Amino acid sequence: MREVAIIGVGLSQWGEIWGSSLRSLWTEAALAALADAGIDRVDTITVGSMSPGLFVGQEHLGALLADEIGMAGVPATRVESACASGGVSLKAAFAEVASGLASIALATGVEKMTDVSGDECTAALATAADAELEVFHGATFPGLYALMARAHMERYGTTREQLAMVAVKNHKHGSLNPRAQYRQVITVNDVVRSARVADPLNVLDCSPITDGAAAVVLAEIGLARKLAKGRPVVRIAGIGHATDCIALHNRPDMTTIPATTKAAERALAMAGKRPQDMHLVELHDCFTIAEIVVLESLGLCAPGEGGKQAESGRTALGGALPVNVSGGLKSKGHPVGATGIAQIVELTTQLRGEAGKRQVAGAKLGLAQNMGGTGASTVVTVVEVAS
Amino acid sequence: MREVAIIGVGLSQWGEIWGSSLRSLWTEAALAALADAGIDRVDTITVGSMSPGLFVGQEHLGALLADEIGMAGVPATRVESACASGGVSLKAAFAEVASGLASIALATGVEKMTDVSGDECTAALATAADAELEVFHGATFPGLYALMARAHMERYGTTREQLAMVAVKNHKHGSLNPRAQYRQVITVNDVVRSARVADPLNVLDCSPITDGAAAVVLAEIGLARKLAKGRPVVRIAGIGHATDCIALHNRPDMTTIPATTKAAERALAMAGKRPQDMHLVELHDCFTIAEIVVLESLGLCAPGEGGKQAESGRTALGGALPVNVSGGLKSKGHPVGATGIAQIVELTTQLRGEAGKRQVAGAKLGLAQNMGGTGASTVVTVVEVAS
Repeated sequence: MREVAIIGVGLSQWGEIWGSSLRSLWTEAALAALADAGIDRVDTITVGSMSPGLFVGQEHLGALLADEIGMAGVPATRVESACASGGVSLKAAFAEVASGLASIALATGVEKMTDVSGDECTAALATAADAELEVFHGATFPGLYALMARAHMERYGTTREQLAMVAVKNHKHGSLNPRAQYRQVITVNDVVRSARVADPLNVLDCSPITDGAAAVVLAEIGLARKLAKGRPVVRIAGIGHATDCIALHNRPDMTTIPATTKAAERALAMAGKRPQDMHLVELHDCFTIAEIVVLESLGLCAPGEGGKQAESGRTALGGALPVNVSGGLKSKGHPVGATGIAQIVELTTQLRGEAGKRQVAGAKLGLAQNMGGTGASTVVTVVEVAS
Repeated sequence: MREVAIIGVGLSQWGEIWGSSLRSLWTEAALAALADAGIDRVDTITVGSMSPGLFVGQEHLGALLADEIGMAGVPATRVESACASGGVSLKAAFAEVASGLASIALATGVEKMTDVSGDECTAALATAADAELEVFHGATFPGLYALMARAHMERYGTTREQLAMVAVKNHKHGSLNPRAQYRQVITVNDVVRSARVADPLNVLDCSPITDGAAAVVLAEIGLARKLAKGRPVVRIAGIGHATDCIALHNRPDMTTIPATTKAAERALAMAGKRPQDMHLVELHDCFTIAEIVVLESLGLCAPGEGGKQAESGRTALGGALPVNVSGGLKSKGHPVGATGIAQIVELTTQLRGEAGKRQVAGAKLGLAQNMGGTGASTVVTVVEVAS
């Protein structure tokens, strides 16, 4: 298998972007990544997007978007695993470069979520759950994550305030990120007193609805070294992917996410690393409880200890294991198909030492965890500065 | 790059299957392919599906369907390129096996199209066209292919009857295929007198709306040889993928499909073969004109000569170059996400010599062409009996 490196990264504006379409947001991110890589051609394109059919009435994004940047002709494919669509987009592009089918790949993600009403948006997002076993019976994602939160509180004594501290930390990080959708610093009191969404989760426990796109350029590592121009070469050391039953009630334990554990084991084995080796982590904090459960599922803390991680300062910028220094989904925003790619944008920026005020000192090795649904799909990626 | 072979194939029932859901159709095809391969585990799963969000209100098919066959845990990803979703599903699985990320892959496609009204189905299919440049202005696929037909008739003198002869041939082939949706033999007169859809295309020029699924199991070739148990080993000798602008009016020439030409060049170069080497071809006859234009775009006849191929008998079973001996999309049916995989099922069955009444004598080398939209995405695959 050929070694694969990341040679360019780009983001569009993120937020409620009324003045841009899906295609213009995607183009903004793709051109930024190509400019960052210093190249003007690629061999293949992948587009992670969860539901452009329901959000903007447009499937067939591969061909549409390749043409949008003047690359009609280039192989281009959309890939989807709900909110892990960005992760599987990265993996699909990785496989093409690793196999030799392509030497340079543009791996992207995009979602334009605000062209529909709030109810339509909730309905579109619900298609990531099991239509027959969950959605038909009224389940929504805030409701499902609320079940996980309540189960975690019951079993481990995790507190309402510990949930809130995840949001407080990630907003503090996001305040340092010019690209973040919400840059205001918030307090535990703000979270606890914010509007109830699904007990025990309030609105400030939830990631927002976001329009946005993200892109990374992958290349075979020999080529990457030639194009590096003095910047550190960041390689994909490991990538792991796993699934689970979608319906939360069919899993034996709601306080852990087995697909995340399996995907991490695969990625870490491929990279030859351990969880505790990581210098920073970007993980899928779609709700505050998700960050807590995912930290445990990744083996970054013991089961039941997730609630204490933000509380103790360990996962804050400056702590022993900074988590979501980008602001995470909570503060940076969550355009669902773009999130998994944006995590790689952040890790690459950090590993290059180009993250400005939110730079993690000495970051040479990082891990990204991106999941769909209540964790039925997870992609874990380990990136490191190539020696 | 590791060599990849096809070790198992399976189809569900095809037709208007009121009694089955998307997940049960997919399961039927997947289990048939696994049984044919004689295995009970795979390393990765791909699912080609165009628009399950619009057709059945369910995205996130990868995890959902892996679980459905007791394979929760296994990496599983949905891929989409409109009606070429099956083709890109095959390509994604191929890349995983070729790279070494997986040794055995289950590549599948599925669409459940009859759970919505006819109008909703037309609207869902229209998301394969350009929402802003085509659909907004009223374009539908019958209308777009009618434009291509009229242009071909004007430039080359292709006749109404020649279009009809494609349908007549493919229905005759389909009459020999127990899996085909429409097994009745039809005449040129039937086609010419059938209800007008979009001048000059009548209803018998159009492939039907179909529920169905298809699956193939891929394996690294060394493993494939061990599992062959005396049957011929069928390898993927080449696979090519290309795109074009989606909007038909933005292309310089409506009588040819450049993405098909590019994809074929890539697949043939990889396989070290020429178009005229092929013993049989399965191609994307979503409308009768499509078969004519695709034959030319693949280099299987000269530009303008496509109309004469069915008329002369060359492309019939028993002719020099049998095309769509399965019945093609026209007679076998067209569950859009499944079609590209079903073509590989047919070619593999033929190359194994297991095609019964529709067997092409001595078939050792075949080509599949699967496209999305009016050809903005094409995947071409060359398969051959491994020596």
